[in-house]
Amino acid sequence: MAAEGADPTRILVAVNESTIKGYPHASISSKGAFDWTVKKIIRSNTSGFKLLFLHVQVPDEDGFDDMDSIYASPADFKIMKNRDRIRGLHLLEYFVKQCNEIGIACEAWVKKGDPKEIICHEVQRVQPDFLVLGSRALGPFQKVFVGTVSEFCTKHADCPVIAIKRNAAETPQDPVDD
Amino acid sequence: MAAEGADPTRILVAVNESTIKGYPHASISSKGAFDWTVKKIIRSNTSGFKLLFLHVQVPDEDGFDDMDSIYASPADFKIMKNRDRIRGLHLLEYFVKQCNEIGIACEAWVKKGDPKEIICHEVQRVQPDFLVLGSRALGPFQKVFVGTVSEFCTKHADCPVIAIKRNAAETPQDPVDD
Repeated sequence: MAAEGADPTRILVAVNESTIKGYPHASISSKGAFDWTVKKIIRSNTSGFKLLFLHVQVPDEDGFDDMDSIYASPADFKIMKNRDRIRGLHLLEYFVKQCNEIGIACEAWVKKGDPKEIICHEVQRVQPDFLVLGSRALGPFQKVFVGTVSEFCTKHADCPVIAIKRNAAETPQDPVDD
Repeated sequence: MAAEGADPTRILVAVNESTIKGYPHASISSKGAFDWTVKKIIRSNTSGFKLLFLHVQVPDEDGFDDMDSIYASPADFKIMKNRDRIRGLHLLEYFVKQCNEIGIACEAWVKKGDPKEIICHEVQRVQPDFLVLGSRALGPFQKVFVGTVSEFCTKHADCPVIAIKRNAAETPQDPVDD
């Protein structure tokens, strides 16, 4: 039952950028979720697990976030798209490097869209054994305004989900920040 | 970071009786949650984990479930209480025996009360690293009538929670059964 040699346990970890530390830092809750998974689940059994890192980029509402929309050419869009791609890869690099150092097999990729929808869609596509999400542990008042990805995924993702709340000590002044 | 020798990861697993297979069988979802934890989390790393089994017995509404209430004496109550205790221990025996066979350290105990409240209370008391719950994966219609312990604990327990849904193939004709 507990025999090794079986396929490794595949854990999907959804990660995102910090809203306060700036590019290309991972959010406090993403880092916390990753550290927790390594410390509490994987432990010394590095060959028994494979981590799958998914970063979902939220497209700017109108696609013209930081360029003058009137003068944007198709070439400008291409540059912008490429810049976003690199930005996402830099975020993932943080996690992949740590896995390499510890000796945990991993994969990492970027998708664009609504994080909660994309995460559930990727769960169906890659069929991980379970999903780990960092959570800001917002109170009911803050939740009303920002929604929470972890609550949605816990209900709708097609695999077990474990949400790791941020330490109280690490919570920024505005708890919506991460 | 992934160093062993650290304290084992302590997983609280809440288990309950089967509603269809009769005493002293564990419910389908409890068995599923336990099997999943061993297969996907503990794997071969049996010394890295400790399982804590909690069984919450729901008291009969009026305490007179299967004796004639008019003729019940204090001695009758004592017998009944003792019978419940033994019943709970027999359920836990199933899980403890399996742990012994695999070589996983464990503890197990019985509490009485409202499962969702008691589970959250025990989380505060024993402070596990996370909580594993079996879930019947009820649809919204069934949920309205029976409530779900896993939803409540996911929101209110003071540790990460992972709910393991029953396999579709194992779902009884009436999905409220387990």
